Amino acid sequence: MKPPPEPAAGLDLIKPAVREQPPYSLKAYSAARKLNQNESPYDLPAALKREIADRLTAVPWNRYPEFTPGPLLDLLAARYDWPSDGILVGNGSNELIQASLAVTLEGGDRVVAPSPTFSLYRLLTNVFGGRYVPVALGPDFRYQIDSLIEVAARERARVVVLNSPNNPTGSALPPDAVERVLAATDALVVCDEAYQEFGGPSAVGLLGASPRVVVLRTLSKAFGLAGLRLGFALAHPAVAREIAKAKLPYNVNALSLTAATTLLAHPETAAHVAEIVATRDRGFARLRGIPALNVYPSAANFILVRCLTLPAREVFRRLLHDHGILVRDVSAAPELAECLRISVGTPEDMDAVVDALGEILGRA
Amino acid sequence: MKPPPEPAAGLDLIKPAVREQPPYSLKAYSAARKLNQNESPYDLPAALKREIADRLTAVPWNRYPEFTPGPLLDLLAARYDWPSDGILVGNGSNELIQASLAVTLEGGDRVVAPSPTFSLYRLLTNVFGGRYVPVALGPDFRYQIDSLIEVAARERARVVVLNSPNNPTGSALPPDAVERVLAATDALVVCDEAYQEFGGPSAVGLLGASPRVVVLRTLSKAFGLAGLRLGFALAHPAVAREIAKAKLPYNVNALSLTAATTLLAHPETAAHVAEIVATRDRGFARLRGIPALNVYPSAANFILVRCLTLPAREVFRRLLHDHGILVRDVSAAPELAECLRISVGTPEDMDAVVDALGEILGRA
Repeated sequence: MKPPPEPAAGLDLIKPAVREQPPYSLKAYSAARKLNQNESPYDLPAALKREIADRLTAVPWNRYPEFTPGPLLDLLAARYDWPSDGILVGNGSNELIQASLAVTLEGGDRVVAPSPTFSLYRLLTNVFGGRYVPVALGPDFRYQIDSLIEVAARERARVVVLNSPNNPTGSALPPDAVERVLAATDALVVCDEAYQEFGGPSAVGLLGASPRVVVLRTLSKAFGLAGLRLGFALAHPAVAREIAKAKLPYNVNALSLTAATTLLAHPETAAHVAEIVATRDRGFARLRGIPALNVYPSAANFILVRCLTLPAREVFRRLLHDHGILVRDVSAAPELAECLRISVGTPEDMDAVVDALGEILGRA
Repeated sequence: MKPPPEPAAGLDLIKPAVREQPPYSLKAYSAARKLNQNESPYDLPAALKREIADRLTAVPWNRYPEFTPGPLLDLLAARYDWPSDGILVGNGSNELIQASLAVTLEGGDRVVAPSPTFSLYRLLTNVFGGRYVPVALGPDFRYQIDSLIEVAARERARVVVLNSPNNPTGSALPPDAVERVLAATDALVVCDEAYQEFGGPSAVGLLGASPRVVVLRTLSKAFGLAGLRLGFALAHPAVAREIAKAKLPYNVNALSLTAATTLLAHPETAAHVAEIVATRDRGFARLRGIPALNVYPSAANFILVRCLTLPAREVFRRLLHDHGILVRDVSAAPELAECLRISVGTPEDMDAVVDALGEILGRA
């Protein structure tokens, strides 16, 4: 069956703000070293995967997952010392960004966020009819809390999104930034801490002090489970109850629930964080030895670099084609002109990318 | 850590339309016979689950799933004879309902839907700032296409949702209903066919004729995979591309993708549909033998009954406590006063629920 040639009648029904929005997309490349999605380079141990697979076969796949995944919420409550009715699990933390924005934004409400940052905030703000107000980061992409606060107050922001460490720059918030934003605005402060285990402060400790804090976390990065799509939000239980209304029922499937519950009960969760941080810091020092790169400080499991002598596009291409290394070309954003984002993989991955960049760009 | 006692500051930031919305919730009961969620009573064969579990252990869990799940889309494209770029997979069809409404609705746009129907349409319409306009079904909950069209035209509906067979009534659309709604309105017509394999017409054949048709399907019911959360939408590729903008990236996890791809390549998918339909029809005839029940015709894998001599709440309670049978009490909705929805389980489940209702309500 073929689609009709003229889709105008269908497209007219799509909101203009959505039609103007470029899609979130990622071109698929295959490469020996995949350093483009900030994934952990370490899969779970085979024995643990086998244990989880065995548990999966014992779960009835024809039945919906639990409406409220009690055992998983209890494990998270114990880990973060926060009541389980103030925790929501989502299909990746993306779903909880979506739900947080969906329940707060209406016609033109302002969302203030650093720039550059994770592109989904802007996309979803537009989908929900809000107005996205980016605030530039400072030199070396450091957070400028004064200007964030000034803009948030002036715009009467309904939501302030703080991503720390920030993707794709790696910038961590200064220690008291969230407190200051809370004190100076009336906004809901969504603290996206997808990468927090790798460095920088956490806002989890502020949950008890303010019902305007929402902290987002994920099992995709430090826990090495990007394939499972499991994120969670911590918030005041009354606020969590409202955010839950825009979260779909049965949003985390039985397979991921089983895997996450098994994993979190296991002692060696997030076992590779120290190793990844050490690889990052060693890689950072080595990358600084390449004069044709600006290397930005990172508290995350990736490093942002700016290419000074060749176009980023060309460096990306040579890394991929000549060295089998896939990084993320983020250079399309004006503030990220000639920038590439390199995920921290294994020590061998890091050596390979440093060596390849040295070869492409020359050394000191 | 304890939440602060006064959450007002956080709740003020939640949109009034969301705060007024009761949450979607389902109280958890355990029962020997679980007939409350329209699940298939048949799990996959143990050997097939084992095959899928083995494949899962070979997938890297630390890597994101594919951005576009090509192999699964190709299987669906072949099955429904529709181009793969006009197919979106979602985390259950719920996510695709959400995305379809998110990209179309702004301030006060009307969504016309039958009443009663699946409660998520109203909830999400409210979340996205639309206005929900229910149109009552007719005698025996039959679709009244004339009045649906009249209301949709009068309200200049942006979206018409047609759920066929309709949950929780079981009503199927008459054969040319979707064509008539398309001809008489300018709306996007979202045809939720979660239960279509069990009876009634499908709008899949209309996709080639109109870019205003979106068909939603799921693996949760006829395919018996409610635990996996995998739904899909079929639409004109240009419309699908827009709906995709409100669908989160990596929304279906690697485990569910692996399971669905393995299952759909297998010959015995949806193997139990004929058996479930036969059980439904036999159960329908037997339930009609209980004079204290109104039994409504159903094209789905559930049957709606109205209790004429005892409150539905009391019948629900006795089924659960005296007979270990869990059904869905849907009697809170005014049009469904004293109604219960009974999922079609195994033949033994059906006999058990008919016998128990006969005992509770008396026979002819």
